[in-house]
Amino acid sequence: MTIHMNGSLTITPLGGLGEIGINCQLWEGASGVVMVDCGLMFPDDAHLGVDVVIPHFGAVSGIKDKLLGIVLTHGHEDHIGALPWLVPELRGTRIYGSSFTLALVEHKLREHEILDWVELCPVNAGTVLDLGDLRFHFFPVCHSIPECFGLGVETSVGRIIHSGDFKIDPHPLSGTGTDLQMFRDFAGLKGARLLLSDSTNVMRDGRSLTEREVKESLAGIFDAAKGRIVITLFSSHIQRIQEVFDLAVERGRTVVVSGKSLAGNIDTARALGFVKPPADFFNAHTGVPDFPDEKLVLMVTGAQGEPLSALSRMVLGGHRRLCIHKGDTVVMSSRMIPGNVKAVSRLINEMYRLGAEVLYESVHAVHASGHAHSEELRDMLLAVRPELFVPVHGEYQHLVKHGRLAQRCGVAPDNIVLLENGQPLTLMPDAFRLDARVPVECTLVDGKGVGDVGFAVLKERRILGGEGMVVVVLVMDAETGSVLHGPEIISKGFVFGQRYSHLLEDAKCLVLDAIKSAHGRSGRMQDNIRSSLRSFFKRVLERDPVVVAIISAV
Amino acid sequence: MTIHMNGSLTITPLGGLGEIGINCQLWEGASGVVMVDCGLMFPDDAHLGVDVVIPHFGAVSGIKDKLLGIVLTHGHEDHIGALPWLVPELRGTRIYGSSFTLALVEHKLREHEILDWVELCPVNAGTVLDLGDLRFHFFPVCHSIPECFGLGVETSVGRIIHSGDFKIDPHPLSGTGTDLQMFRDFAGLKGARLLLSDSTNVMRDGRSLTEREVKESLAGIFDAAKGRIVITLFSSHIQRIQEVFDLAVERGRTVVVSGKSLAGNIDTARALGFVKPPADFFNAHTGVPDFPDEKLVLMVTGAQGEPLSALSRMVLGGHRRLCIHKGDTVVMSSRMIPGNVKAVSRLINEMYRLGAEVLYESVHAVHASGHAHSEELRDMLLAVRPELFVPVHGEYQHLVKHGRLAQRCGVAPDNIVLLENGQPLTLMPDAFRLDARVPVECTLVDGKGVGDVGFAVLKERRILGGEGMVVVVLVMDAETGSVLHGPEIISKGFVFGQRYSHLLEDAKCLVLDAIKSAHGRSGRMQDNIRSSLRSFFKRVLERDPVVVAIISAV
Repeated sequence: MTIHMNGSLTITPLGGLGEIGINCQLWEGASGVVMVDCGLMFPDDAHLGVDVVIPHFGAVSGIKDKLLGIVLTHGHEDHIGALPWLVPELRGTRIYGSSFTLALVEHKLREHEILDWVELCPVNAGTVLDLGDLRFHFFPVCHSIPECFGLGVETSVGRIIHSGDFKIDPHPLSGTGTDLQMFRDFAGLKGARLLLSDSTNVMRDGRSLTEREVKESLAGIFDAAKGRIVITLFSSHIQRIQEVFDLAVERGRTVVVSGKSLAGNIDTARALGFVKPPADFFNAHTGVPDFPDEKLVLMVTGAQGEPLSALSRMVLGGHRRLCIHKGDTVVMSSRMIPGNVKAVSRLINEMYRLGAEVLYESVHAVHASGHAHSEELRDMLLAVRPELFVPVHGEYQHLVKHGRLAQRCGVAPDNIVLLENGQPLTLMPDAFRLDARVPVECTLVDGKGVGDVGFAVLKERRILGGEGMVVVVLVMDAETGSVLHGPEIISKGFVFGQRYSHLLEDAKCLVLDAIKSAHGRSGRMQDNIRSSLRSFFKRVLERDPVVVAIISAV
Repeated sequence: MTIHMNGSLTITPLGGLGEIGINCQLWEGASGVVMVDCGLMFPDDAHLGVDVVIPHFGAVSGIKDKLLGIVLTHGHEDHIGALPWLVPELRGTRIYGSSFTLALVEHKLREHEILDWVELCPVNAGTVLDLGDLRFHFFPVCHSIPECFGLGVETSVGRIIHSGDFKIDPHPLSGTGTDLQMFRDFAGLKGARLLLSDSTNVMRDGRSLTEREVKESLAGIFDAAKGRIVITLFSSHIQRIQEVFDLAVERGRTVVVSGKSLAGNIDTARALGFVKPPADFFNAHTGVPDFPDEKLVLMVTGAQGEPLSALSRMVLGGHRRLCIHKGDTVVMSSRMIPGNVKAVSRLINEMYRLGAEVLYESVHAVHASGHAHSEELRDMLLAVRPELFVPVHGEYQHLVKHGRLAQRCGVAPDNIVLLENGQPLTLMPDAFRLDARVPVECTLVDGKGVGDVGFAVLKERRILGGEGMVVVVLVMDAETGSVLHGPEIISKGFVFGQRYSHLLEDAKCLVLDAIKSAHGRSGRMQDNIRSSLRSFFKRVLERDPVVVAIISAV
């Protein structure tokens, strides 16, 4: 491969900037496009009924002829989760990532029965990979899942560094931690041309807690607990899982795991040598050993209060083999994602009601973030000394604050580029420019439908969900215009029928009036019925349901 | 009044225990019932379309013949907000509270056109009020709205203290602060029989920030701000509003207020002498003065990201006179309520996009809670030295922790009673008992409907909102059973019609098959159609909408 020093490179983020989630970037050089990460986002309250949110479908299918491959930094859902929906558009592509990342991808694509549509190509720390005129180097970084990479990319416009999701742990419990020296060496004496760096925790001062400190807190909890220890954690946090295994073995407790994703990830990690479960280790699915409480650790899914998770079922009922005992110590060893605070609080309160003690991050040091705090971010900036800086992986306020940090670390203010989703950044050998934004609204996935649920459908769902629906059915004689049957009125999610039957009777009279005043024009009838009933319901109930009038002429 | 020392007293919380909101207790002595507070709760995500949540309607209307009056501790919505819906059940009652509290109540009841259904009776710190065999004393406490009371109640079973919502501010910027000495004196040498105390912030260590400290932070922000200062706060926090007025006058800035509740509360407070606005003070509703940015402070509603608030409209568009300027300093001088974090974050990010700087509680000391932290709660416990302790105003985990604190303060473990909503506590002169719980599920208010939206309707709304609705209409000949018209299929919130018209065509064929297999039985037909379409949609789309089949026979 020859790298032409007179080319240009365009980086277009399809997601992840201005939001946490949907990390996905297109890197377009002279000979094609590389996709860096392919993540999803979980829907928020406004996305009624939506399962997942993925990058803009059109922007992805538009590059299929130019795609040189997909490079994955690590295996979290916000970096690999959209593959099942985008791979069908990108059939035949190669996907590059660490063994652990690809094991998770393999599992996903097999479930969707599209595994043979792509080629999975494992890379290691130190691998050098040429994709068109881009030469990728993979640097180990410490995060909260095994085998994460930062990227060093030799390009026609200079050396570019993508931090990946990272933190700096100088004394990691396993693995190499983040190898800042590799970043420093790659950037060279004059510094990198461009750094893209993780902004998630820029607003947290100092340095993130280390796993060593978390393990110490957990050890203290193990020492103090009189009954069972119930621990929830992110099911991909294999290092944390290993800590629990180790503590259990040391303290003579047996571990029982419950939850499909947790059991699955432990299997995957064990097969690749990333976790070593104790010899006597049980899956609640097949049975729970009859040991006394003080001899048990239950490791379960449900740290975010997900209603079908093992923890929710244990607490609210519905778990076939496990429940909360009085005297249990429950450790929520993960961050509460803001949208989930209510659901998690509900569980915590219920566990207190059942007589358990609950320990969580905001009160005890039982979780460490996988993302660098501001001082670690400064270390990265100082190691790489970039000419240009693009903060990534954050809400807009995080990007702004990260930009300010870069300025304090010596990056020229004009060289700090706050990209947003869909905003292409084009680098030339000694300049850069921002071209017009491309459309990149996310695509919504609901069941098997990809992209068919849009704003119109969501708006209808919002009204249906908030106000309910009233259906009016009427059969008319096509010739005479007389009413043969009805009006029948059926409501769903509107009022409790028995209590308001008088109201629905009044509504029928209004329907008949509305028909009369339409003088036989059927379109007019429907409009009249809808507007007449809507203003009636607004007046008597202050509610505005979806009203559908169906008039059949026979 | 004679207080018989051999009677009993039953306190039944209708809300506020196990949740933050709906504070409402019934105190039943020998001669009748006193209602202490009458609050509402704002709905959460599960309460689709619900406007407010109020105490159990039946539990309230059941006491109307025994009601001696309603005593209000202060004017926050979670203490007075349910009055408009419950007063019609309790016509003729007297409502006791401070002048400021009653001014807010008056405004509410006038809006609902029921002001003359009750008698508003102002009380002061020091007032002694006999209601049946209960003698109420009102003690001033410091909170986050003017004129708050704690209650000291002489009863036939001893002296009972209700802290009200309180914090302890030893050097308040105005008023008397919390007069712990009055509580101490009332409890007397042997301590109170029972203390009910605010648990909201029991999990926060130390002492709450004082208003003096908040004002200092705000002063620093005023000194540093180059452009306009935009400040949002709880619109009933009159003390904070006064601080902003004072700082504006000192720094030569003019205050413009925007937002109906803020302007209304300032009017109310001004009329009663609780706030002194500057001489040149504007309401954006009538016009914004054409002053340079550095001469303005905008005080606006919208601290919780409410979509129709002044701040949201300024940021997202829709405010007729105000918008965010580059260089504005926006101060969110209030707590982000957990359920609102997403909405507030969206606003904050958008303000950064518009070039403003945003300061909020978690990063700067721009807000102080109105609720005592653990050391202040200890002060109250030690002042009152209760024999019995009931933690109130908190989620269950807060009640548990507050109970533990009471134990550390010397209350016997058996005398710490974790009441839940609907659990009556009966005090006899030298014992207490817990009778069977009474039903107190909250009543939901949706528009003008009080209580008609229950679990069945909410469940329908949840499905409608998440999956949408499909309506099948069919007209049959009553005699021959042949199809005269249809099937017509109409969907709302289900799929984007144009893209899936083939699917709805297939569905029509299934409907015809379903009819055939019902052999003319109409109830069977509807069932067949529903189950056939539901399994069809599940299979092809993995969606499960509400399916309604309407068959008209003519």
